[in-house]
Amino acid sequence: MEPVRVAAVGLGRWANVLADAYTRSDNVKLVTCFSRNPAKRDAFSARYGCGQDESLEALLRRDDVEAVIVTVPNDQHAGVIEQAAAAGKHVYVEKPIAIDLADGLRIQRAIESAGVAFLCGHSARHLGGLRAIKGFIASGEIGDVSMIEATFGNERGLELKATDWRGDPSKAPGGPLTQLGVHQIDNLQYLLGPVKQVFCFGKPMYTSVPNETVLQTVMEFESGQMAYLGTNWACPGHFMLNVYATRSNLFYDLDFSWWSNSKTTYEHSTLMRTQFASFSDDPDNRVLRKSLVQFAPTDHLRDEMEDFANAVRTGEPVEIDAALAVRNLAVVIAALRSAHEGRMVTIAEVLQQA
Amino acid sequence: MEPVRVAAVGLGRWANVLADAYTRSDNVKLVTCFSRNPAKRDAFSARYGCGQDESLEALLRRDDVEAVIVTVPNDQHAGVIEQAAAAGKHVYVEKPIAIDLADGLRIQRAIESAGVAFLCGHSARHLGGLRAIKGFIASGEIGDVSMIEATFGNERGLELKATDWRGDPSKAPGGPLTQLGVHQIDNLQYLLGPVKQVFCFGKPMYTSVPNETVLQTVMEFESGQMAYLGTNWACPGHFMLNVYATRSNLFYDLDFSWWSNSKTTYEHSTLMRTQFASFSDDPDNRVLRKSLVQFAPTDHLRDEMEDFANAVRTGEPVEIDAALAVRNLAVVIAALRSAHEGRMVTIAEVLQQA
Repeated sequence: MEPVRVAAVGLGRWANVLADAYTRSDNVKLVTCFSRNPAKRDAFSARYGCGQDESLEALLRRDDVEAVIVTVPNDQHAGVIEQAAAAGKHVYVEKPIAIDLADGLRIQRAIESAGVAFLCGHSARHLGGLRAIKGFIASGEIGDVSMIEATFGNERGLELKATDWRGDPSKAPGGPLTQLGVHQIDNLQYLLGPVKQVFCFGKPMYTSVPNETVLQTVMEFESGQMAYLGTNWACPGHFMLNVYATRSNLFYDLDFSWWSNSKTTYEHSTLMRTQFASFSDDPDNRVLRKSLVQFAPTDHLRDEMEDFANAVRTGEPVEIDAALAVRNLAVVIAALRSAHEGRMVTIAEVLQQA
Repeated sequence: MEPVRVAAVGLGRWANVLADAYTRSDNVKLVTCFSRNPAKRDAFSARYGCGQDESLEALLRRDDVEAVIVTVPNDQHAGVIEQAAAAGKHVYVEKPIAIDLADGLRIQRAIESAGVAFLCGHSARHLGGLRAIKGFIASGEIGDVSMIEATFGNERGLELKATDWRGDPSKAPGGPLTQLGVHQIDNLQYLLGPVKQVFCFGKPMYTSVPNETVLQTVMEFESGQMAYLGTNWACPGHFMLNVYATRSNLFYDLDFSWWSNSKTTYEHSTLMRTQFASFSDDPDNRVLRKSLVQFAPTDHLRDEMEDFANAVRTGEPVEIDAALAVRNLAVVIAALRSAHEGRMVTIAEVLQQA
């Protein structure tokens, strides 16, 4: 297919991580970039051999730009996306779609009324292990799932300064829940369907910023199944997702060191399956067997961008559209409300009030 | 030391598992046994080469019995222990100490007024991995702990018949939470101190009995730290305890197949430590290192019995006395009340009402 011509908008660290990934794809061609900071524009443009524009308006007027890759701060997503959609540009935005539901719904309306393609970058469901787990559940091979345990964290909170947007609850509410946990929320809704209600303990720990750095959330799904999500900014990096089903347990673990180098993430991940090697009537005489599951390599950041490019070219639906991204955000907001108010919160409650 | 002469009271499956362990100890000598079922008495007596008594009263009158190992059903613990303590016998009881707090407190009073030694069999804290984790926390070597994730389950709920006491909420309230999870609750209070409050989602899943078979609980401790506990009777066996601290994460995993064969449990367990191999200012350029932690072998069921025997001989305190066992039970009861009422429950609330 003819590569989709994209422009990078917002040129912080993550714009570079993403560009490293999508410039490996034959389906995407980076043509220009924009940041308010000229030094960042020069650096990005030089690194990736693309053009640059001096304003968002100028970039959006270009006929050779079909789509924008939005990595501006979370609280600026809505404004940028409204402009881009109004200009007829397709939109990729980094997760979370926004940090409040009003902004999330503004984005959803702007996309729907412009009729452009849209994808929110919950790349984790493109990890090979997640694809394999989804297959095991869909085929029924592991039996019926009762619960999942997911955890995602790193040391980011230990280094936060008062001036860092990540430490500001109005810019990154719930810290690691908004920035990391939302990946696992997408994974959990991918595997189990919509969350119904949540409870969360969360607080700032081992930091001087006022934002939560450690949060533990339990969830009940509309299906009746349950899940736990641990998110932490006060420890070395980790990412796990463990599935408990009637005939097997699955343990997926990846080395966070390689998260943002998405072509290598696969090599540093394992999916272990536990099942019975023998099943005696005597419960003291049953032996479990662990076996490594082989699964197809993926490049999660490149692959999500190829899903987006396919939607631009063919009009086919993406996996993670605005409605689903809003629903992922609603779970974050429900969990934070739960942590602040010490009570169980339903997703319906937060959606109704948005 | 002179071995403590013990009698086994209640001769179900677990009495055999325990006897296999404590008959390996030089500090314990099994002299007699009792069950209302003569066939069970004959079998146990023949298997372990000990005597047998036709009534509990006769057993408790024997001068050559110093202590009783109580493995009668949970709801009969209090009556048996009151009789034993009144007869001046030291008491080991299998966990949980009881299934309601009134019984737990009856046991605590009976032990204290008789002045006998008492230990409740939360053997899991005698696992080598738990000892090593406690050492890492106490020394400060892994930094400050923010959260722990613990999980313990097996397939028991998938086989429950309507007549099985395990499926009856009045005999085994909360199923795997009472029977398995209480081990992890003891581990968590061993590592982080007293639990302050809890929230739990729990329900019967993949069973026809009315008892919960899957429960997910989050806890906040008086220290401010947090933990999650997953308990499940609808999947293959598993036991994990993961600690997240500012300088390292610790992942402890054991193969449940070998749980009740306590001299081999050690060989089928691993403790993995994650820490930074290099720490660049650039978060995309930090590499984590996993390393297996070596720790001393233990035999958790034998070792807890040796702690008990030592207390009998020396009068020194045991690790898990009646007050602590009641506190472990209180966390179970708070979690179940939370699951039934859909709200956060404090330990103070359930203790005040007992």
